[in-house]
Amino acid sequence: MLETPVIVLNVKTYEEATGPKVFEIAQLMEKISKEMDASMAISVQATDIKSCAERFSIPVFAQHIDPIKPGSHTGWTLPEAIKSAGAVGTLINHSEHRLILADIDVCIKRAKELNLDHIVCSNNVETSKAIAALSPNFVAVEPPELIGGDISVTTADPDIVSNSVKVVKGISKNVKVLCGAGVKNGKDVSKALELGADGVLLASGIVKAKDKETVIADLAKGL
Amino acid sequence: MLETPVIVLNVKTYEEATGPKVFEIAQLMEKISKEMDASMAISVQATDIKSCAERFSIPVFAQHIDPIKPGSHTGWTLPEAIKSAGAVGTLINHSEHRLILADIDVCIKRAKELNLDHIVCSNNVETSKAIAALSPNFVAVEPPELIGGDISVTTADPDIVSNSVKVVKGISKNVKVLCGAGVKNGKDVSKALELGADGVLLASGIVKAKDKETVIADLAKGL
Amino acid sequence: MLETPVIVLNVKTYEEATGPKVFEIAQLMEKISKEMDASMAISVQATDIKSCAERFSIPVFAQHIDPIKPGSHTGWTLPEAIKSAGAVGTLINHSEHRLILADIDVCIKRAKELNLDHIVCSNNVETSKAIAALSPNFVAVEPPELIGGDISVTTADPDIVSNSVKVVKGISKNVKVLCGAGVKNGKDVSKALELGADGVLLASGIVKAKDKETVIADLAKGL
Amino acid sequence: MLETPVIVLNVKTYEEATGPKVFEIAQLMEKISKEMDASMAISVQATDIKSCAERFSIPVFAQHIDPIKPGSHTGWTLPEAIKSAGAVGTLINHSEHRLILADIDVCIKRAKELNLDHIVCSNNVETSKAIAALSPNFVAVEPPELIGGDISVTTADPDIVSNSVKVVKGISKNVKVLCGAGVKNGKDVSKALELGADGVLLASGIVKAKDKETVIADLAKGL
Repeated sequence: MLETPVIVLNVKTYEEATGPKVFEIAQLMEKISKEMDASMAISVQATDIKSCAERFSIPVFAQHIDPIKPGSHTGWTLPEAIKSAGAVGTLINHSEHRLILADIDVCIKRAKELNLDHIVCSNNVETSKAIAALSPNFVAVEPPELIGGDISVTTADPDIVSNSVKVVKGISKNVKVLCGAGVKNGKDVSKALELGADGVLLASGIVKAKDKETVIADLAKGL
Repeated sequence: MLETPVIVLNVKTYEEATGPKVFEIAQLMEKISKEMDASMAISVQATDIKSCAERFSIPVFAQHIDPIKPGSHTGWTLPEAIKSAGAVGTLINHSEHRLILADIDVCIKRAKELNLDHIVCSNNVETSKAIAALSPNFVAVEPPELIGGDISVTTADPDIVSNSVKVVKGISKNVKVLCGAGVKNGKDVSKALELGADGVLLASGIVKAKDKETVIADLAKGL
Repeated sequence: MLETPVIVLNVKTYEEATGPKVFEIAQLMEKISKEMDASMAISVQATDIKSCAERFSIPVFAQHIDPIKPGSHTGWTLPEAIKSAGAVGTLINHSEHRLILADIDVCIKRAKELNLDHIVCSNNVETSKAIAALSPNFVAVEPPELIGGDISVTTADPDIVSNSVKVVKGISKNVKVLCGAGVKNGKDVSKALELGADGVLLASGIVKAKDKETVIADLAKGL
Repeated sequence: MLETPVIVLNVKTYEEATGPKVFEIAQLMEKISKEMDASMAISVQATDIKSCAERFSIPVFAQHIDPIKPGSHTGWTLPEAIKSAGAVGTLINHSEHRLILADIDVCIKRAKELNLDHIVCSNNVETSKAIAALSPNFVAVEPPELIGGDISVTTADPDIVSNSVKVVKGISKNVKVLCGAGVKNGKDVSKALELGADGVLLASGIVKAKDKETVIADLAKGL
């Protein structure tokens, strides 16, 4: 399982992180991760999992799996396929890729069967608790209205983080909690940890940064 | 664009075609394609596009694209991503991965922007005509009730093929027509061409065959 | 079938048109329809079909049907149910309620089986043509970006109307064409007819109007 | 809130329960409910809520609500609309009408705002617990593979009932638990109560019965 505290980068389908362009970002993360002994993971598009996993030592995650077994599922994302490509984990139920509840349950079970780490996204305290009831590795709470914005969830709504930690740990001590939305610097990261989170999930904060190296190093300082 | 007449293999998310296992199938298709001068393409899972495109000379297709541009679309399939990985085309609206009409229109437009070949699947004569109205490269008619079955669409329902050809060509001579469902041997292929189709789309007929080489060679004879 | 030219009001799920509140609007339409000999229809929420159909002589439409037959489909909208409640027709594939292509085809066939009028919504010229290929009674073209706005489609994008008329009639003379989005007054209606449309589909233009009677009468003058 | 123990009938979109045909069933339930002092409710199609609520004294439920507020949501089911039509409650997330997790949360909150009873369906013990974490009135556990079958969940899989009761009550004593799938007679009902459930949810057991009166009376004896 991911070492915590951890910084997880979701590169989404940003142009700056499609195909070989993602290598620059992954390389910086790998470098800073080693230099600063900081736990970091990168979640890339399905098409880029294999080339990233072959090139870099940081954990590579998928951005999504579908609730399926091998068979007739043209164009869907098979958990076995992302594992075979080299992913060690996956996001599930990201705010931009919601699943029905019964399918979240199946995805978590499939991830466990294949020993894939899995970060299941929630949008508020109630859904954090509901997801914790399904016993995933990680719950990542991200208020949708703050995603991609300028203010970190840890500043804009610290209670959603601390209360998610409280309800999730109330269900099970084994479930770790990340938080995300608007996270941009080391102060946001250290605030997340103060609030009880085991790390952060972020995207544009790194991918859209002009000086990515400085931003990643600053984030790592917050751990 | 794909040379026609053509045999397009969709390997779905079958276990026998996930990760490196798909190489055996792609290699056989490449070999027979050369030996028999037969036009063939393979549609693989997103995670396997890059490694197949690097290894094999036959055209590699994605199984799906989403109606999106680069941006915040975690876990969806960006057309630019499959192109960057080496795909020269994609299936759209496969029977196992249906899209809303407005999104089929967007996917076709996005594929054209990126010079990606695109095979848009229909389920009957009416939807073949509707898709032709959107001016794709290819329409592939596949009656869902025959998919994965033992009887070829060309035997079970030849009229759906000839009538799809008729209505599609009535809309535009530039749109090519494939047919699929239950296609298993060279006779099915030659019958498809007799009915006016420009090729076939198949899956289990090859992937689940014990002697894949013999089956692929027999299919190629039908061209 | 609806007499054309026609004004079709979709009351959506607006608070001002939920439950008995919709009666005031339906009554005004009925009154003005009679006084001015103008063809008008009202498309109401499923829960309000029966009470509207019992009270008013203007045609009552559903806002949606699902592609189903009687059976195990908890909470979906059965075509037989809206007919039994008194609807004489339905919208299909409204911009706020998109369907996959194969399901649009099923909905049109189910509507025809039950002699229900059906207005199938499109979002541009290409999808207008695709829908026409499925032989519905009506295609209603509504550019999503203009829906609910202040400028009528007939002013903002007259070509989308005239070109939709052209491509639809090119497929079949029997398919009638409505247009919608931002339609607010009699001038917009008369412009729609000039552009070749057989009527208009509108929503907020009436439902959100302060003086509904004046607005409806003005719209009717445009016919 | 529904008095418990309770029998809730979901008539789905069965032909035998569409339009005025549902009155016969509702009338029998009303009669037996009074005679035997048994708590019963009926969940009908949206189009039939008003006429049932006007005619019968037993609680009338909707089969579904969408996670929306009044506004531009053509053809979706507005919670205010079912309440205005006379429903006192609704099913949410039925096995045939699944919702994404964030939307289940919104539907429960909307139901509470409007004082609508709400029965949220789950498919196994894990999802029962997850739903309980969202604090609904009722969780109804129904294994999809047993729905519509001949063997009652209380016989085929009694553990799913008793374990759902256990995990739900572990989250909150205030959440009541129903069970369903294959429930057909009074013995199944009394077994459900023995297993800790507060009632049953059933459909074909009544709707498809030849002698509905005898079946309903027998079910009521099980309370």
